[in-house]
Amino acid sequence: MSTDTMFWFIPFASVLALGFAFFFYKKLLKLDEGTDMMKKIALYVRKGAMSYLKQQYKIVTVVFIIMAIFFAILAYGFNLQNEWVPFAFLTGGFFSGLAGFLGMKTATYASARTANAARESLNAGLKVAFRAGAVMGLVVVGLALLDISIWYLILDTFVDDADAKHKMIMITTTMLTFGMGASLQALFARVGGGIYTKAADVGADLVGKTEAGIPEDDPRNPATIADNVGDNVGDVAGMGADLYESYVGSILATAALGAAAFFGSQWSPDIQLKAVFAPMLIAALGIILSIIGIFLVKTKEGASMKQLLGALGLGVNVSSILIAIGTFGIMYLLNLPNWQYISFAVVIGLIVGIIIGQGTEYYTSHAYKPTKKIAESAKTGPATVIISGVGTGMISTAIPVVAIVVGIILSYLFAAKFDFTNLSLGLYGVGIAAVGMLSTLGITLATDAYGPIADNAGGNAEMSHLGPEVRKRTDALDALGNTTAATGKGFAIGSAALTALALLASYLEEIKMGLLRIGETTIDVGGVMVNTAEATILDFMTHYEVHLMNPKVLGGIFIGSVMTFVFSGLTMNAVGRAAQKMVEEVRRQFKEIKGILTGDAEPDYERCVAISTKGAQREMIFPSAVAVIVPIIVGIVFGVPGVMGLLVGGLASGFVLAVFMANAGGAWDNAKKYIEEGNLGGKGSDVHKATVVGDTVGDPFKDTSGPSLNILIKLMTMVSIVMAGLTAVYSIL
Amino acid sequence: MSTDTMFWFIPFASVLALGFAFFFYKKLLKLDEGTDMMKKIALYVRKGAMSYLKQQYKIVTVVFIIMAIFFAILAYGFNLQNEWVPFAFLTGGFFSGLAGFLGMKTATYASARTANAARESLNAGLKVAFRAGAVMGLVVVGLALLDISIWYLILDTFVDDADAKHKMIMITTTMLTFGMGASLQALFARVGGGIYTKAADVGADLVGKTEAGIPEDDPRNPATIADNVGDNVGDVAGMGADLYESYVGSILATAALGAAAFFGSQWSPDIQLKAVFAPMLIAALGIILSIIGIFLVKTKEGASMKQLLGALGLGVNVSSILIAIGTFGIMYLLNLPNWQYISFAVVIGLIVGIIIGQGTEYYTSHAYKPTKKIAESAKTGPATVIISGVGTGMISTAIPVVAIVVGIILSYLFAAKFDFTNLSLGLYGVGIAAVGMLSTLGITLATDAYGPIADNAGGNAEMSHLGPEVRKRTDALDALGNTTAATGKGFAIGSAALTALALLASYLEEIKMGLLRIGETTIDVGGVMVNTAEATILDFMTHYEVHLMNPKVLGGIFIGSVMTFVFSGLTMNAVGRAAQKMVEEVRRQFKEIKGILTGDAEPDYERCVAISTKGAQREMIFPSAVAVIVPIIVGIVFGVPGVMGLLVGGLASGFVLAVFMANAGGAWDNAKKYIEEGNLGGKGSDVHKATVVGDTVGDPFKDTSGPSLNILIKLMTMVSIVMAGLTAVYSIL
Repeated sequence: MSTDTMFWFIPFASVLALGFAFFFYKKLLKLDEGTDMMKKIALYVRKGAMSYLKQQYKIVTVVFIIMAIFFAILAYGFNLQNEWVPFAFLTGGFFSGLAGFLGMKTATYASARTANAARESLNAGLKVAFRAGAVMGLVVVGLALLDISIWYLILDTFVDDADAKHKMIMITTTMLTFGMGASLQALFARVGGGIYTKAADVGADLVGKTEAGIPEDDPRNPATIADNVGDNVGDVAGMGADLYESYVGSILATAALGAAAFFGSQWSPDIQLKAVFAPMLIAALGIILSIIGIFLVKTKEGASMKQLLGALGLGVNVSSILIAIGTFGIMYLLNLPNWQYISFAVVIGLIVGIIIGQGTEYYTSHAYKPTKKIAESAKTGPATVIISGVGTGMISTAIPVVAIVVGIILSYLFAAKFDFTNLSLGLYGVGIAAVGMLSTLGITLATDAYGPIADNAGGNAEMSHLGPEVRKRTDALDALGNTTAATGKGFAIGSAALTALALLASYLEEIKMGLLRIGETTIDVGGVMVNTAEATILDFMTHYEVHLMNPKVLGGIFIGSVMTFVFSGLTMNAVGRAAQKMVEEVRRQFKEIKGILTGDAEPDYERCVAISTKGAQREMIFPSAVAVIVPIIVGIVFGVPGVMGLLVGGLASGFVLAVFMANAGGAWDNAKKYIEEGNLGGKGSDVHKATVVGDTVGDPFKDTSGPSLNILIKLMTMVSIVMAGLTAVYSIL
Repeated sequence: MSTDTMFWFIPFASVLALGFAFFFYKKLLKLDEGTDMMKKIALYVRKGAMSYLKQQYKIVTVVFIIMAIFFAILAYGFNLQNEWVPFAFLTGGFFSGLAGFLGMKTATYASARTANAARESLNAGLKVAFRAGAVMGLVVVGLALLDISIWYLILDTFVDDADAKHKMIMITTTMLTFGMGASLQALFARVGGGIYTKAADVGADLVGKTEAGIPEDDPRNPATIADNVGDNVGDVAGMGADLYESYVGSILATAALGAAAFFGSQWSPDIQLKAVFAPMLIAALGIILSIIGIFLVKTKEGASMKQLLGALGLGVNVSSILIAIGTFGIMYLLNLPNWQYISFAVVIGLIVGIIIGQGTEYYTSHAYKPTKKIAESAKTGPATVIISGVGTGMISTAIPVVAIVVGIILSYLFAAKFDFTNLSLGLYGVGIAAVGMLSTLGITLATDAYGPIADNAGGNAEMSHLGPEVRKRTDALDALGNTTAATGKGFAIGSAALTALALLASYLEEIKMGLLRIGETTIDVGGVMVNTAEATILDFMTHYEVHLMNPKVLGGIFIGSVMTFVFSGLTMNAVGRAAQKMVEEVRRQFKEIKGILTGDAEPDYERCVAISTKGAQREMIFPSAVAVIVPIIVGIVFGVPGVMGLLVGGLASGFVLAVFMANAGGAWDNAKKYIEEGNLGGKGSDVHKATVVGDTVGDPFKDTSGPSLNILIKLMTMVSIVMAGLTAVYSIL
């Protein structure tokens, strides 16, 4: 098969994914939403979620237009950027936003239907929720490959370069910049959504559970609809945009690394083309295998937690095993040099993903010792719950980080055929590992999105006063969702780290293009002048002195590290402030609207939704601005070595911090659930109250600050990539 | 004046410091300890502290002997280390331990005497406590320069090298290894002491304040003596050993960098010698100016907090201004090339120290908005206190980190005379900045050690039922101590970061010596063979490929970053476990010993002291072992690039994490104090209870994990320095 023919497999897989998503969506809409009460609640949540997203997209549109103009000025006014960047940027943002929108729309249609299906059987409930999640998964991967295919075809037609291999570098480095749009969109989704959901959740818990003493998801609580809206906004739309960006970023960075690694005169243009297509083809194959996996998910009535996990696991595992095998097939067909070795990188990526998932489960599920110990520490009050949660969360960072380090080294070594000095091929291998880890995103994201849908179904069932049998089923589905949410977060962080690393490596390709654009055809490498177009990664490292004793590099690393803490602190405080407003509103409603607590009057849900929306919109601006502006300033002041330091420092610190926050939050949540299951005094005891404090603290940890860090580390790299032209030309120090 | 003559100023200053320390100590002992009750309580605390230190030194001695044997085998058996290392290592440990011991002994003699002096006047109390703290400050700097002087004289006599300049490199790199001994001693002091003090404090608070409802420092609480012992063990002995190590480390690293920077053939041996002496002479001058500053500290009756702060500030500020001027004098006399520029590095170091102190005060004192906001968040319960404390603590990292980055860049630029490529001179400047920051340690450490002494004096006054007038005075002294403790922590972290960086730069000198020892007289620098002895820092960076795209470097950075989190997590959990034991014991005593709460029976204080001692000893082993072993393993697996990555990753992440933990803890503590002063409901209100939770969580943050990180980042570098010979010769990848 010719390489060009193989390309068409990519848009084909994309269309297939979108087709199945549409099919699942249509089937979903045909289901009944249940009782009038169920419909009403679902409508509230849907309206709240949509009104939030509309509001968010308004702000985002303004920001995007401003940035696109800025990029256009850089590109057309000063020749500091590729002329395609403004457009690539806009489409990246559009598709990422669209993926989030469609996923969330589906999720809000699915919750009542899941609850209603649960009235029939556990399996029916699981299937509805999971297939709705699958819509999200398939939309994300489908739109991603669609965007990639379209841009590839456009650039292949319009980029004008006689040298085929140089043209491919141009194409891949240009495509990479559309990741910036996806990244920025994801930032707003994660930060805004994260603040929204936790302001509502914390606010609802503080007044509802602690002060008024009413259970979770009680319709008497005015903030309860906002809480349910938040799950959709933060965990569906936010998570989707985040992983859309990792997915796109890892594929495009790897393509750029492939174009660079096979640029040398010893390779033919066709080999280079294959190296560019390889990550896309692996992703395309992954889509098809994900669809197969999705159809395998089913369970039987009265299934235990273990069996439910097994049901989801079956789908994911089958897809993973098949993609590992299938990769060797694709690589064999492509016949890249050393294809067997490069294929191993995919397997390594998959294994690292699984290890991170398992590690997360161990540290956050109350089936294991760490979370049980946190629950036990509640016997001496909330302070010891926090201390042991922080301690355990910090220790839990070891497994994912060591797994990623081993994964980086091994995928590098394999792809470089055990020659440590072969930087280009080795880093291409790291990129391939990231693509491998994300190749089954179609189904893994389905299990992630399943979580909030099941959670909302439970909320709907509770609020609609469905029978205990149904509640038991939705509880089981919800508990399953908690576990998949925790492992999903670990996966999101791990893949973000690998993706950021691949992006970082491709940053140098953008610098190279920047230099070429302004006519710097040679660079000084330790006294020797080297042709810029042919300069290797090592040449650039030497030219810019990107070594660890360069104070610019060190300064960058320090700033990168502190950025992650400051960013987390800003988002934590944002949740605190927004939750405060929610608490005041709920208290006001309890006081002013007579009969709420007796169930005689309906609370003003919309007002709470509006407060969370406003709070999230206002609070997301500053941290987002910091994330975009700091890399630009560091680039202008410290130049390339400073930027690389910044990105590495931010990556190393942010990755660890994100894992810590996600796992501590997850463990606190499940420690509380452990008590609620009747252990150590059960619900209502002092021990339980102590764990509620832990859970409340953990909310912004795991759902706002932690996940936002994923985006931060990728976005900073993306900003640097887009601004590479400026940095290459101009810096103060 | 000849350079050799100037040397004698160093031991002279050392002896002067020790003389004044002895003088203050003798004067202290002559003071009356007060009533029988006061004497009895002081005796309890003294006995508890000494028994702890004895126990600790036993374990430490065993560890030191094992390590010394290990080093001796490496040195004499395999020629992988300098033959002096085992001895230098042992003396470093001995002197560091001695400084901690003497400082703590003085502190335990001072508390009752401070309380007794406070019966006379506020000024008398301040003077006793501060002069006792000054004993610690002067002992630390005095012993440090004594050790340095003795070793310099020994090595100058015995090191046999015809080439004077090469001999100086040998001497300085050998001396550097005694920092490892100081570092290891400091680790045990900080980790063991930190666990001790917080196990007692948290335990005492949880049962005493929360369950039994008795105030702090109430003699009815069995853990109260252990709590007071802990202040001495953690904050005096631990802090002393920590700063002893930073002080010694910064001076010796700078000396080694100086010997290397002025090694080239364009410099005379005398210039090189001057560059080696410069940091020592600045330190010596700092001692004399610190003594002058100590005599300036006094106050008047009824002084406000501001005036008290001013009293301490006067001493510190006068010393700082004089040292800034004096440095130019010393450098003028030394007549080093570009001495004016290098002198500026000292000023920069001093300014950075001040900025860090001010920033810490802003974020942790309840005179400012951030801490007040944390207090206000207590209105919605303990969860929001934790959320806003974590948020604020994270944001507070920006000031010190940016200050350090700017300080690094500026001191580098000045010393390198604005030539960014002059790495050796620039890094020498960074070292000089660290020395400058620490030059007034004699007096700054006095203000640090003052804190726990005043705290203990307050405890003693409370337990001895002294009158309200006296309590008011000891409270004022204690409140002052809280502020100095917080800024002191910031200073300790900032100086640790700069010191670690200087140590990191000198690591390469050790690698060079390691290569020369095994006869590797040339190294490959990008294809060109370069004479090892003359290889520059840049040559080594190129030779070992210590650039940011090397996966070994990246792997090292990730591991370094995660190390700091895991280490903090281990120490957090250690406190949690030890505190749990304390809680159980206090509960047992309340139950079994009738009449404790009515004051008719005396609790069993010793048992609580024994529990904290045992807990600390057991819990400190594992984190300490991790800190020592990981750098060795990384060195063996990844070689020099991996080690450098590890150290930079650990430094960047650990510095930020340490500031976060220290400031969050300090802010929680003061938010509680703000409420206790009668704001927002005052003592006993729900708001107060919520801030007590914050304070309890903050205890291990600010007094165990945070400060232990200072040592971790220095110790990892020291371990790498000592193991450089092995790493240079052998690594797997």
